[in-house]
Amino acid sequence: MDEFEIIRRYFVRASSDSDIRIPIGDDGAVLQPSPDHDLVSVVDTLVSGVHFPESLEPADVGYRSVVVNLSDVAAMGARPRWMTLALTLREASHAWLERFAQGLFEAADEYAVTLVGGDTTRGSETVISVQILGDVRPGSALTRSGAAPGDGIFVTGCVGDAAAGLSILQSGAADSEDVDYLVRRFARPSARVAVGAAIAEFAHAAIDVSDGLYGDLEKMLLASGVAGSLELSKLPLSPQLTRLVKRDDALQFALSGGEDYELCFTADPDAAAIEELAEHLGVAISRIGGVNEGNGITCLSDGRPFDYSHPGYRHFH
Amino acid sequence: MDEFEIIRRYFVRASSDSDIRIPIGDDGAVLQPSPDHDLVSVVDTLVSGVHFPESLEPADVGYRSVVVNLSDVAAMGARPRWMTLALTLREASHAWLERFAQGLFEAADEYAVTLVGGDTTRGSETVISVQILGDVRPGSALTRSGAAPGDGIFVTGCVGDAAAGLSILQSGAADSEDVDYLVRRFARPSARVAVGAAIAEFAHAAIDVSDGLYGDLEKMLLASGVAGSLELSKLPLSPQLTRLVKRDDALQFALSGGEDYELCFTADPDAAAIEELAEHLGVAISRIGGVNEGNGITCLSDGRPFDYSHPGYRHFH
Repeated sequence: MDEFEIIRRYFVRASSDSDIRIPIGDDGAVLQPSPDHDLVSVVDTLVSGVHFPESLEPADVGYRSVVVNLSDVAAMGARPRWMTLALTLREASHAWLERFAQGLFEAADEYAVTLVGGDTTRGSETVISVQILGDVRPGSALTRSGAAPGDGIFVTGCVGDAAAGLSILQSGAADSEDVDYLVRRFARPSARVAVGAAIAEFAHAAIDVSDGLYGDLEKMLLASGVAGSLELSKLPLSPQLTRLVKRDDALQFALSGGEDYELCFTADPDAAAIEELAEHLGVAISRIGGVNEGNGITCLSDGRPFDYSHPGYRHFH
Repeated sequence: MDEFEIIRRYFVRASSDSDIRIPIGDDGAVLQPSPDHDLVSVVDTLVSGVHFPESLEPADVGYRSVVVNLSDVAAMGARPRWMTLALTLREASHAWLERFAQGLFEAADEYAVTLVGGDTTRGSETVISVQILGDVRPGSALTRSGAAPGDGIFVTGCVGDAAAGLSILQSGAADSEDVDYLVRRFARPSARVAVGAAIAEFAHAAIDVSDGLYGDLEKMLLASGVAGSLELSKLPLSPQLTRLVKRDDALQFALSGGEDYELCFTADPDAAAIEELAEHLGVAISRIGGVNEGNGITCLSDGRPFDYSHPGYRHFH
């Protein structure tokens, strides 16, 4: 099975997107961008053994490789349209490819993005680069650099679940509904595309939580030239996480774990629109802190400064 | 040096492209597509030890990784605009990154394409995926599927040089000007972007020669549902190649060697425009055969059928 056969067999599917003039299969795809819209381009790579355990179900690998990119599209406030896939594999395993493609197209269908191109190559490990194109109204793209003193800091969903799920995959834990839930948050994260598109109207800055809430918030504040405070008691922790691990470990997962692909953004702290939006979209949005003059992040526990960098091991109890 | 530092240090450069609204460095780039143009998207991956020898000068790796993609843009008849880079590295070596980026930007400057995004990850080998966006007038993109009986088959430049150059890199040859020339054709191939844009007006089908002239022509004829004949005596072979290897080996390199990144296209065989174009652009364009009804490729040597699949070793003499 050569690379052309792989593409034909697993990755060519009919599409109803009439803006695709020439689909996957030629030297390149030809696409008709939406008139009067800007184009958003993102790219993210997953390496086996680095970004996911080699034991991860191939369908989950396919799903995740799309969602981590959709999350960047969401953080720009854009609508995903088209994607390309650069896939490096050790061997062309039918079973792996079939399930990988299944997960990839599950995510593609769920978020209405169409695969328009790809390249399949042989290497000594699995490397998956997905690139997504989206569109956004001119001037309404969200960036990391618009946070201003007085803004509230908000985050969608719950944080820490995916990192706990990954830790369970790596070190094991007794099977339970809570364990399954957390593993699934790692294997099948949500991309907050609908939230991103909705907050593009009023949010000042946004970033997706891929490397850990603390570090990603730090990047956004740095890009904006401002400081922030984070109220630990306000961090949205899932009941599954808090039932399974001690509070300190849950905070550790939430702050430095990464992999959540939630959106962190800043906006007018009184925006009633946010509460309304959360209800409308069925996605929790929590206010977790505020933006100040200066630089760096102050963590507060019930209003008092708190050093979050707890070095302890992550034990499941 | 973490991935953010790598991007900042080696890959963020000022750009004068006013259609880039948000450049590299945020969650995604925001681009303003040319009004009334279609978008062309291509992606190609190079794996160290598979697509280039590990000993290849890093600047050449950077240059090549851009050109192999530009060649796909050229084969669509499009103008390159923006690119993203997904780079997987074993280690963050300053010396390697500096020279890789230098070669990458040399190609980018030469072909007027701007780096707008990237992702740097750690893996066990070097994997480089470049994705390029270009634009083209609606309806004028070239495809592989438009070849028609009666068309002439044309190819730009010379074929076989790059494959011979790779073979020299892998197995060695006594140093000479001819050897240097062929190695350079592998290390620094040309992307026929100007030719592609010019022939978009009248060519019927096009493909870039990445996997070998025979195989790539076969793909184009298959996509068009036609057959072709190839006159071996018309294959454009460089004097450097024919001085260095026997004629049979030169043909072997030319037909199955790949790596040339020349354009193969079909058009009206009498198109005087082609000769004029070749002169105007300073790029040789040779008529090497013709399109017929049926399927498959017939190789002709001075008009008589010839089986090209010579199994001999490739010796340099």
